[in-house]
Amino acid sequence: MHDRLLTQCHVATMVARPGDPLGMIRDAALTVTNGRIARVGPAAELAAEPAAETVPLGGAWVTPGLVDCHTHLVFGGTRAAEHAMRRAGASYQEIAAAGGGIASTIRATAAASDDALLGSARRRLRALMAGGCTTVEVKSGYGHDPASELRLLEVARVLGGEEPVRIVPTLLALHALPPGANRAAFVAQAIDKLLPEAARRGLATAVDGFCEGIGFTPEEIERLFAAAADHGLRVKLHAEQLSNLGGAALAARYQALSADHLEHLDEAGAMAMAQAGTVGVLLPGAFYALNESRKPPVDLLRRRGVRLAVATDCNPGTSPLLNPQLAMNMACTLFGLSPEEALAGMTVNAAAALGLDAEVGTIEPGKAADLCAWAIEDPAELGYWIGLPGPVRRIVAGRDAPVDPRA
Amino acid sequence: MHDRLLTQCHVATMVARPGDPLGMIRDAALTVTNGRIARVGPAAELAAEPAAETVPLGGAWVTPGLVDCHTHLVFGGTRAAEHAMRRAGASYQEIAAAGGGIASTIRATAAASDDALLGSARRRLRALMAGGCTTVEVKSGYGHDPASELRLLEVARVLGGEEPVRIVPTLLALHALPPGANRAAFVAQAIDKLLPEAARRGLATAVDGFCEGIGFTPEEIERLFAAAADHGLRVKLHAEQLSNLGGAALAARYQALSADHLEHLDEAGAMAMAQAGTVGVLLPGAFYALNESRKPPVDLLRRRGVRLAVATDCNPGTSPLLNPQLAMNMACTLFGLSPEEALAGMTVNAAAALGLDAEVGTIEPGKAADLCAWAIEDPAELGYWIGLPGPVRRIVAGRDAPVDPRA
Ligand SMILES: [Zn+2]
Ligand SMILES: [Zn+2]
Repeated sequence: MHDRLLTQCHVATMVARPGDPLGMIRDAALTVTNGRIARVGPAAELAAEPAAETVPLGGAWVTPGLVDCHTHLVFGGTRAAEHAMRRAGASYQEIAAAGGGIASTIRATAAASDDALLGSARRRLRALMAGGCTTVEVKSGYGHDPASELRLLEVARVLGGEEPVRIVPTLLALHALPPGANRAAFVAQAIDKLLPEAARRGLATAVDGFCEGIGFTPEEIERLFAAAADHGLRVKLHAEQLSNLGGAALAARYQALSADHLEHLDEAGAMAMAQAGTVGVLLPGAFYALNESRKPPVDLLRRRGVRLAVATDCNPGTSPLLNPQLAMNMACTLFGLSPEEALAGMTVNAAAALGLDAEVGTIEPGKAADLCAWAIEDPAELGYWIGLPGPVRRIVAGRDAPVDPRA
Repeated sequence: MHDRLLTQCHVATMVARPGDPLGMIRDAALTVTNGRIARVGPAAELAAEPAAETVPLGGAWVTPGLVDCHTHLVFGGTRAAEHAMRRAGASYQEIAAAGGGIASTIRATAAASDDALLGSARRRLRALMAGGCTTVEVKSGYGHDPASELRLLEVARVLGGEEPVRIVPTLLALHALPPGANRAAFVAQAIDKLLPEAARRGLATAVDGFCEGIGFTPEEIERLFAAAADHGLRVKLHAEQLSNLGGAALAARYQALSADHLEHLDEAGAMAMAQAGTVGVLLPGAFYALNESRKPPVDLLRRRGVRLAVATDCNPGTSPLLNPQLAMNMACTLFGLSPEEALAGMTVNAAAALGLDAEVGTIEPGKAADLCAWAIEDPAELGYWIGLPGPVRRIVAGRDAPVDPRA
């Protein structure tokens, strides 16, 4: 006896078949038992499955719940004023050099009470959930010392306990040098104190860094990665966003789950990523918000066989993006992904970018029953609409979990 | 005795004052009587106003309800396949020449039942309402003959009667030549039969056209405008989107409410608009979706004193945009508007673009109590976030009118 039989729907399983990257089943049904997918197939084959509850979905398309594999959700303040500066022509580097940028968020985060941090992050999280996310990665990175970094990870843990969503916490240990900090001391403390403590307390499942001229050097990142390996944590990296420092290849050498941004990626980096199975995470929201012109080399990534994910990069400075469907639309409109690639980018490949591909990201027996039902006629519409409000039904571990983003 | 006293809020009245384009009142209150704004001012001054109900807003910012002054909301089908064509490099003109584009929507609209047309338009309308719209303009334009055009306007009327929103119907009489139609006969029928019938039945408050190489010539548009004047209808025009045919100046000669798009507007057109009081409506969603590089001349429009509005242009081909806040963000990010200009563009100036500036668009005594309360700390956030789900409270004619966009 199953818990639920979902019927009157079409399913994009996201288990690719030749000529059918979405693994579509039209006129489908699926069963859920103990929060997991039990069976999925043509409705005619599953009609006789016994279930405590039958849920007709009115012709909706069912996809895996969306996975947002790159966010900086927990922060104090906004950067609305900086948005106006950029509009007037200032570059990201200029704003950072003027003491704005990430430094201003580090200050506002330090000034925010626990309640304020939790409350504002919850509003943004609910926007993503209402938009279809059932798994959301949350990075730290706006703390000015180990204690404040750990506080951000604790906020992420509280959110995951209180909201019907899977939160995947990442320690972004080397993100930005806080104003006035001693560089060598900050890096040493992040590696020798913060990382071990986060690992010991189980507050993070991966470690991340920002490898960039205005961030940290490849040498600093490599020390961080070596320490992460010592503590049994996987790594990922903000790489090749504004320049090419070889971050993607470095990440691949450490078997990184993902390398993210990649606007300036070169052939050697793409080859290294493909060999290591490192997922390429594309973040079109930052490209859009920064009025960038250099796009990530999508054709190169395809040619080398790098799996592509898409994420909101939700953050106050460079991508205050609150709608995961819009990230898919931007990936199509701005980066030229196909709608199928964009949907894979927020399901199966995003799950891989989090090391969760055995658990979520496709609709297969045994996986978590994290699902979205969309009032659309064709899955390609998920790449087409600009700002779709969200699925008509959002299911987490087999149960309906509606969200009011405005509550 | 007032019906309601709204307190614990800040108000952007959108009545500009020197140095304060938003007409802000911090720590404000306002009273509502018979669906209209009675008083607005500092909370201290209004605290003693008698009211049947006191509504504390928890520190929210209150703005006029958003006015989306340019949409093509009623249509059959989607153009998701064409979206993929564009991604692969096809231009708008090439798609139109290949029999796709508007022609495919005209066919899908003709094939759709009344229920299907109404249902899909309602879903899109609810997305806009959930995003903060209390007034939405709806154009016809996908009908292949007078009867099908009138059907679209009737769908708009039904929507306005059923949903808590003010619908402003526009007869887009010369939009696209239907496949196989005789040009001269189509234009003559639109002017001599469709327009008079729409006017007689009160189905439209303004008449619109698409003045473009792939649309209609200035001469055809001028005949339409002359007929509109004969029937007491105001005019507006899709002008200077893909080329400069002098449409804006033509529109201004007929005292048009607005000229819309304007990417190719020249100095003479801007001067004519300013003199006629014709509002310039910017549609960044189409610019974004078409990957255009030519922006409307915002500095020229400012210098000439043309009032600027911003709209979603929600339509299946060139702007399937469902979130009015995102239109404001795109106006800032892509066209360089300030957050204040963007908010004026979806309130006071959008109301002017519909000839409704005496009724909506600002928070002043006597105007309709159509309001949004936003969970933000600064009105500039309305231009900053990318895809904000919508206001925490949406009030129409003084009453709470929440919307579930997924219902
Ligand atoms: Zn990031
Ligand atoms: Zn239009």
